[in-house]
Amino acid sequence: MPDPRFFHAAGPFTLAQLAEIAGAKIHGGVGEQVIHDVAPLDTAGADDISFLDNPAYTEAFAASKAGVCIVGENLKAPTLSGMTLLIAKDAYRAYAFVAQAFYPDALPVPGVGAGASVDPSAIIGEGSEIAPGAVIGANVEIGKACLIGANAVVGIGVKMGDNCDIGPLVSLKCAVLGHHVRIYAGARIGEDGFGYASDAGGHTHIPQLGRVLVGDGVEIGANTTIDRGSGPDTVIGEGSIIDNLVQIGHNVRLGKYCIIVSHVGISGSTTLGDYVVIGGQVGIAGHLKIADGVRVGAQAGVIGDLEKGATVIGSPALPHREFWRQVATLKRLSALPKGKSK
Amino acid sequence: MPDPRFFHAAGPFTLAQLAEIAGAKIHGGVGEQVIHDVAPLDTAGADDISFLDNPAYTEAFAASKAGVCIVGENLKAPTLSGMTLLIAKDAYRAYAFVAQAFYPDALPVPGVGAGASVDPSAIIGEGSEIAPGAVIGANVEIGKACLIGANAVVGIGVKMGDNCDIGPLVSLKCAVLGHHVRIYAGARIGEDGFGYASDAGGHTHIPQLGRVLVGDGVEIGANTTIDRGSGPDTVIGEGSIIDNLVQIGHNVRLGKYCIIVSHVGISGSTTLGDYVVIGGQVGIAGHLKIADGVRVGAQAGVIGDLEKGATVIGSPALPHREFWRQVATLKRLSALPKGKSK
Amino acid sequence: MPDPRFFHAAGPFTLAQLAEIAGAKIHGGVGEQVIHDVAPLDTAGADDISFLDNPAYTEAFAASKAGVCIVGENLKAPTLSGMTLLIAKDAYRAYAFVAQAFYPDALPVPGVGAGASVDPSAIIGEGSEIAPGAVIGANVEIGKACLIGANAVVGIGVKMGDNCDIGPLVSLKCAVLGHHVRIYAGARIGEDGFGYASDAGGHTHIPQLGRVLVGDGVEIGANTTIDRGSGPDTVIGEGSIIDNLVQIGHNVRLGKYCIIVSHVGISGSTTLGDYVVIGGQVGIAGHLKIADGVRVGAQAGVIGDLEKGATVIGSPALPHREFWRQVATLKRLSALPKGKSK
Repeated sequence: MPDPRFFHAAGPFTLAQLAEIAGAKIHGGVGEQVIHDVAPLDTAGADDISFLDNPAYTEAFAASKAGVCIVGENLKAPTLSGMTLLIAKDAYRAYAFVAQAFYPDALPVPGVGAGASVDPSAIIGEGSEIAPGAVIGANVEIGKACLIGANAVVGIGVKMGDNCDIGPLVSLKCAVLGHHVRIYAGARIGEDGFGYASDAGGHTHIPQLGRVLVGDGVEIGANTTIDRGSGPDTVIGEGSIIDNLVQIGHNVRLGKYCIIVSHVGISGSTTLGDYVVIGGQVGIAGHLKIADGVRVGAQAGVIGDLEKGATVIGSPALPHREFWRQVATLKRLSALPKGKSK
Repeated sequence: MPDPRFFHAAGPFTLAQLAEIAGAKIHGGVGEQVIHDVAPLDTAGADDISFLDNPAYTEAFAASKAGVCIVGENLKAPTLSGMTLLIAKDAYRAYAFVAQAFYPDALPVPGVGAGASVDPSAIIGEGSEIAPGAVIGANVEIGKACLIGANAVVGIGVKMGDNCDIGPLVSLKCAVLGHHVRIYAGARIGEDGFGYASDAGGHTHIPQLGRVLVGDGVEIGANTTIDRGSGPDTVIGEGSIIDNLVQIGHNVRLGKYCIIVSHVGISGSTTLGDYVVIGGQVGIAGHLKIADGVRVGAQAGVIGDLEKGATVIGSPALPHREFWRQVATLKRLSALPKGKSK
Repeated sequence: MPDPRFFHAAGPFTLAQLAEIAGAKIHGGVGEQVIHDVAPLDTAGADDISFLDNPAYTEAFAASKAGVCIVGENLKAPTLSGMTLLIAKDAYRAYAFVAQAFYPDALPVPGVGAGASVDPSAIIGEGSEIAPGAVIGANVEIGKACLIGANAVVGIGVKMGDNCDIGPLVSLKCAVLGHHVRIYAGARIGEDGFGYASDAGGHTHIPQLGRVLVGDGVEIGANTTIDRGSGPDTVIGEGSIIDNLVQIGHNVRLGKYCIIVSHVGISGSTTLGDYVVIGGQVGIAGHLKIADGVRVGAQAGVIGDLEKGATVIGSPALPHREFWRQVATLKRLSALPKGKSK
């Protein structure tokens, strides 16, 4: 059971309700069965619902005492006596919806917290909460049912839609956000891009006159930095997910539903298509075009355009099969003669 | 036109004024021409000034409807009928000055914002603004016309010169800053360096008794961390520019006008000369000497001293020609025989 | 002498007191000698104590005017006329204790600072300080003699032991901390882990129902991010030291006394044993087991389990001897023919 210091289960739910939430079919049970919580296979009890998504856990599944288990429709597991199944197209996604039902995001508590500072010209939508210490600048527009976290700073003119969740100590500047945007603690959205005209006399700052546009449903991780555009905008497409400590340069455009893992750096003016997946610590040079569905392996260094569906890794990045062939070649060429000690 | 939610053009300026600001000569126009804004070549109109710096944009230049365009003096482009030129030694730098004239940094609004906490012993210079929620510790000295951003924390004894711009949610500790220093949101200046005496009993913290000294005109990016010295100081030389999410260890010394791109890590006690350029995600080991004008390519790992003017890349770092020769060699050695499928 | 703007030496101490603090023996001096400060060998004077730990500094030692010098018991240096020695098993560790005596951590000033917001249900232990602007949520429990830094945000239900030092602008959520935990400015503890169920329809957030458990004596660097568990907990073992800008994913378990250098990323559900040392910018994939005492060189990419005592480097990571052999092989194979210009 999740620690009650931090988590409080909603519910209980009947199996029929959960089947509907999960978009799943009941197998071996009755709709009236009452479920009180989610739990991992190994700790779940008769009142809990669990899930099996990864074949590595088949043994744990067999031994589990969970009252109900969500499984994929193509699972070839024996139906266990005593365990009811919920059969879903995608067990993990079905579990996500069930877990969200038990542990919904906390609703904002409408109002302005102690020590918060809200400029009189700011418009705060119905049901939104400004947590203690937050600072809301002039001409800000916040939609309905948003949460602005403690000590966050929302700069002049920033606009956001409904149901946004802005974490504690986040800063927003020159940004326009859609609905259901979630920004984790300490992220920096809209700071100046890295634009300088350099010569022997030093580096002259170029005013950065663009914005950051963030689509509906985007998530931006803790302490991540997304610079605003230099004239064009920096754009984060609908539903894209950005992990912690990522750097996104000015004028970068992410398509829809991209995944960017932590410590990635994307240099200025590069564009990514839809459904691009970038592994941890990858660096991408500036002014490149990365097409839809590209996958870049962790720690790669991308210095050229990538075509639709490419999978690359290495620094400089190579098609993944070529990379692994090179790894094998170098291993072979540098192998010690047999019998020679290391 | 930049979004008026966030940006307000100063001006208008006459062409004669802009020529003086840019240090440029008017070609094919009159000094009385009035200009209202800056704009990219493709969206600029008759009232706008644009620039051409990169030959890749020659076509956009030819098609542009800009009233005036700044070009370099060695540009071999046809003079366009209807477009006035400003001819400068360095078109990009000239544009920087023009753009700064249209979009100057916002002036501080002198005073102390709501919910800010200023220790009575702190000295705040004339014309400086302490934004809402900022915390200014004992014996802090802030120069004239500085801006301390919302919810920033300026620790005991910190001193800064005039015209510094400290972003929201920045923290400063044991730091002495020159004039015109700009620190972006969430940077951490002056935390303890990573100094421990370790044995099987654990890691004993060594008190870090140095400072961070930051020269005039330095810029430090969002969420970057610069640790204070362990006894000697950590020093950031005049005019150096540090991007987001960079880590600079204790006792590191940067010379003047260096550029450090995001996610770089520089280990303790390493010194960099002047005009050093470090690409993104580079790691530099401790106790090294990197001479003036060295250039380190993105993702390199530097484990030895580098001489004046060296250009290196790779992990471990190599002279760049050698690196690319190695890349080619490995590609050749691991190539598939002709006709063999991947 | 450390800058008195920032540092104030306790003391003075007699040599006898320092010998006891350092666990060292006096050689060539008397216990009544009075020492006023610590200083590096080259600047120390007759009232100062210094140390020699690294043979590279033997010359500085010979020339030093320090009143007392801490040296290791196996040092073969000539006893200098005029310089008293403190002979310790580990000179650096002995110096650490002496330096801590002269420069102890500032004691919290009990009370709640201006503009801080403390929920009435929070329990604050005796002698603890809540600095200006800090926000303490409902049901928080803070032990004795803790310092909660300016504008830090301690989320609902967070619990910590005694003598914790939480830096300015830190955020804590769903976390339980032991005693003597030190968290530097801007660290983000307990944000949601990176858990999504993805398909063509997008990425569905999985509620993250675990905590972050932090052992006694742990240090967590500036702007580092440690996500909370997804159901299991994320665990940082006693005495482990984590540098700045590190990312630790959900369900990661660190053993005791690990050292994690800056910009490291550890992916979800990986476990590290005790005394593991991870160099800067290393990436470690998810679901791995890294055994006790493993050492991973800077910038390595770890994609498999590592056995006790392994030392690896490279991306993908290799045993360090094999890595360096590969580096040499590739250098040899791509060398230019003699006499050919680069």
